[in-house]
Amino acid sequence: MTSFGSHPDRTGRDMFAEAGLAALEDAGVPAADVDELFYGNFVGTLSEGQGHQGPLMAEALGTTAPSRRIESACASSGVAVRDAVRAIRSGEADVVVAGGMERMTNMGTAGATKGLAGAADDLYEVRSGVTFPGAYALMARAYFDEYGGSHEDLAHIAVKNHDNALVNDHAHLQQEITVEEALGAPEIASPFTLYDSCPISDGASALVLTSPEYADEHDLEANVAITGAGHGGDTMALHDRQSLSKTPATRDAAEEAYDDAGVDPSDIAIAEVHDCFTIAEVLALEALGLYSHGEAIGAARRGETRRDGELPVNLSGGLKAKGHPVGATGAAQVAAIATLLDGTHPRADAVDDDATVGVAQNAGGTVASATVHVLEVME
Amino acid sequence: MTSFGSHPDRTGRDMFAEAGLAALEDAGVPAADVDELFYGNFVGTLSEGQGHQGPLMAEALGTTAPSRRIESACASSGVAVRDAVRAIRSGEADVVVAGGMERMTNMGTAGATKGLAGAADDLYEVRSGVTFPGAYALMARAYFDEYGGSHEDLAHIAVKNHDNALVNDHAHLQQEITVEEALGAPEIASPFTLYDSCPISDGASALVLTSPEYADEHDLEANVAITGAGHGGDTMALHDRQSLSKTPATRDAAEEAYDDAGVDPSDIAIAEVHDCFTIAEVLALEALGLYSHGEAIGAARRGETRRDGELPVNLSGGLKAKGHPVGATGAAQVAAIATLLDGTHPRADAVDDDATVGVAQNAGGTVASATVHVLEVME
Repeated sequence: MTSFGSHPDRTGRDMFAEAGLAALEDAGVPAADVDELFYGNFVGTLSEGQGHQGPLMAEALGTTAPSRRIESACASSGVAVRDAVRAIRSGEADVVVAGGMERMTNMGTAGATKGLAGAADDLYEVRSGVTFPGAYALMARAYFDEYGGSHEDLAHIAVKNHDNALVNDHAHLQQEITVEEALGAPEIASPFTLYDSCPISDGASALVLTSPEYADEHDLEANVAITGAGHGGDTMALHDRQSLSKTPATRDAAEEAYDDAGVDPSDIAIAEVHDCFTIAEVLALEALGLYSHGEAIGAARRGETRRDGELPVNLSGGLKAKGHPVGATGAAQVAAIATLLDGTHPRADAVDDDATVGVAQNAGGTVASATVHVLEVME
Repeated sequence: MTSFGSHPDRTGRDMFAEAGLAALEDAGVPAADVDELFYGNFVGTLSEGQGHQGPLMAEALGTTAPSRRIESACASSGVAVRDAVRAIRSGEADVVVAGGMERMTNMGTAGATKGLAGAADDLYEVRSGVTFPGAYALMARAYFDEYGGSHEDLAHIAVKNHDNALVNDHAHLQQEITVEEALGAPEIASPFTLYDSCPISDGASALVLTSPEYADEHDLEANVAITGAGHGGDTMALHDRQSLSKTPATRDAAEEAYDDAGVDPSDIAIAEVHDCFTIAEVLALEALGLYSHGEAIGAARRGETRRDGELPVNLSGGLKAKGHPVGATGAAQVAAIATLLDGTHPRADAVDDDATVGVAQNAGGTVASATVHVLEVME
């Protein structure tokens, strides 16, 4: 991945080339061997006036391999990875690049907020004034109402994820914060203050995925595999849901991915989850089956999901502190788990030596779309 | 498909619901059986402010099945069909909906032209003043220079496709034109006059694809199958190509699709090709191997590709007269071939009784992306 942050003067192709070429070099795979590109991007037509980015990004890697842009709001590159896995499993491709890019800071705060609002229902949510801080604040309020919990519980999540990002030079926000600072920050949508929200970021990410046969034949050094992939959906608008405090799209994606990999939530040692807002980390951990409903709200406060806890969550810093260039996020999460498991991530020292299974969860909108990938260290 | 045309007051979800629900009813498949949605759309964020259309469109069909929007400019739903076929072949899905929608006339001519320009290279083509009529006019000039041919040859293609659309009530332009009218129409980009270009249209299309096993178990009446799928890529910008008169993305997609289906160009009885401009039909027929280079330019003039010719092309009216709601086009082409082969299309009487193989070719940008699907009547 590129560093995530404010890069308003870098073009999308420049950022994706950096991430993609680095991934190819790291994998030891020449561009000429790439069979297909699965590329995630959300608002490129708004931020750069550039549609049809698939061929452009393939070309940035030095190939004219067939490509498609996959858009599923903030889950764009999670779905790109999911469909890329299928391309290899189908036997129709041996090597694929899956990744994504987003350029957002050049749109300004109002432009980016409007672009992001396109991930919700334009007719029935956005025109009623609901943008994403408000939508997730509604989910937090519903959660508190149903299960208890407080803004202070959420502040511990923000503090944890900022703390994790301190050693990650690719993170957007390398800034230590305290619970008091998080609670005292300006309110953006009650109960959220500024530090409950991820930043608006620019950046790109890319993964090189190959068949096991290709990896063997070419003596690739990679020792982590995607063993499970899942994809779930839900109604677009919050008001059509049975519950605001549960996210069945993540639940369905997790069940599919666990079944696919043959693992159980109890096998999972580390997780990267979609914490666009602090409450989203709670909802994800519960939908992933890593906590019962009502239990994840206190996990960071109790220390369990901190890097010295039993189940470190968002060791990369998460969207909260690593940053959230929308189309790049899902693939970056998978990359974080892979490098945490193989020991090359700056926070890999927080991962137990005997850890072999990690999970990455990516969500679009208010979790109208979700993907889950299980990664395992190969024998 | 919905009727293609000028429907500025219909929302995208309204149009996709019409097409998708009609497809489910025609197939005899309940929405509850849909495993996934592959949805093509190009400029929805510009025309409706609506991103993340996958879950919205799934919901319009009555399902929360996982979805993704696939964007590959004018090939968006061609790629959606290609990836949907893979989903079924992988064994991970039994029933998928593949389709697309575009809303364009509400953007106005200048807005739609700008949106469409996003399918070319924004930095190196669009900012030099190249929009699509100009880009394809360059390709026509290069073709004339290399192989000969004239604007009159192209006019015969427009006349043919308008003529084919006369009985198609879903077509945007049901209007007979003559060669003289086509030649005498206002020039839009030399050598093109107005009738060399497809219209700007609104509309939606959807296909229900199932595994053979599902079709058998549920006694579905469909008797046409997609037996070959191919996908090709090329450089984004024209100036990076070795030739302006050849389209290797279509050639590569065709080779993959023919190999996949085990057919040869000589087996093909009918074709729907991407005639966004008249020259594009020529380039497609040659890249598909249905004509040698330099030979397709005269095919319509000689009558071979007319509906009473040996190889009827664009019996639906093509993009030229049926219309071109960008994201809906690729799936609509596949639907046209399927209904021409099973006898339910209004122009099915032009198809030989012993015809069993048809091909649909969809292109994005100046053919930086292309898909080819082979359809066959099942025994």
